[in-house]
Amino acid sequence: MKKTHILSVLVENEAGVLTRVAGLFSARGFNIDSICVAKTLEKNESKMIICTSGDAKILEQIIKQLNRLLNVIKVQELTGDDSVVRQTVLIKLNADETTKADIIRINDMFAGRIIDVSRNSYTIEVVGSENKIDSLIDIVRPLGIKDIVMTGIIAIQRARRLS
Amino acid sequence: MKKTHILSVLVENEAGVLTRVAGLFSARGFNIDSICVAKTLEKNESKMIICTSGDAKILEQIIKQLNRLLNVIKVQELTGDDSVVRQTVLIKLNADETTKADIIRINDMFAGRIIDVSRNSYTIEVVGSENKIDSLIDIVRPLGIKDIVMTGIIAIQRARRLS
Repeated sequence: MKKTHILSVLVENEAGVLTRVAGLFSARGFNIDSICVAKTLEKNESKMIICTSGDAKILEQIIKQLNRLLNVIKVQELTGDDSVVRQTVLIKLNADETTKADIIRINDMFAGRIIDVSRNSYTIEVVGSENKIDSLIDIVRPLGIKDIVMTGIIAIQRARRLS
Repeated sequence: MKKTHILSVLVENEAGVLTRVAGLFSARGFNIDSICVAKTLEKNESKMIICTSGDAKILEQIIKQLNRLLNVIKVQELTGDDSVVRQTVLIKLNADETTKADIIRINDMFAGRIIDVSRNSYTIEVVGSENKIDSLIDIVRPLGIKDIVMTGIIAIQRARRLS
């Protein structure tokens, strides 16, 4: 199993910074598995969470280059052990008389929420680790997935224990 | 208030596709407010959800160009009225004797989850519309935010009513 690396990259909000960051990866043929870019508390800054399963040595070089990029403020590697890792998925499922009860039961098991309902579909929202989301998809797939949208993975460092 | 546009862009997983997509926006000085890129059910495809508040006419041109890009399979504009829009935030808060009860109460009001606890911090996970997340941040800010990470916005079309 390839190790997943999670990078947190704090950047200034300048047009082009995402292009430059993504360009560093693609120039090396390095695939980004998922990415989330969103605002922070600072008006002119955004945080990118980049998830990749590529080679650790090449990643080390990429991190060095990221640090040298214009508009990049801070680069940090987060590990799954020291961080809480989350992904959110919205799944629209085929809901007929044979599947409705199943969807409600599965949604409850995954502590999900039903966010849209029509006569023939239920849309559920579930948050969890990548593994949890993968299990959910595996379980609901036979019911008939009409549409699916996922965030990339985000991660936040666990608090240090004061031991 | 500027209108927010949400684009769903289905792409083939080729190194460089994110760079090319982001490049189309930055070449026009067009700011991306948030972006989520994640896998789909098809092994070789990813879906990007791009959120922007830029000029509608320029966006129309960008959409045309996106459709012509290599590895772009489908571009769709989603509207807030026809879609369920969600964002997930992880917030680590200063938790001392004066703030712990507040955090728990706010977390309950926002139907959040406490995902990490230490002697002096609580980390909460909340999912909601952009407005809901903005309200949450506004409310917890005086308690002391130690760290915050957000996904970009994702959106899924509501089911059509069979009327």
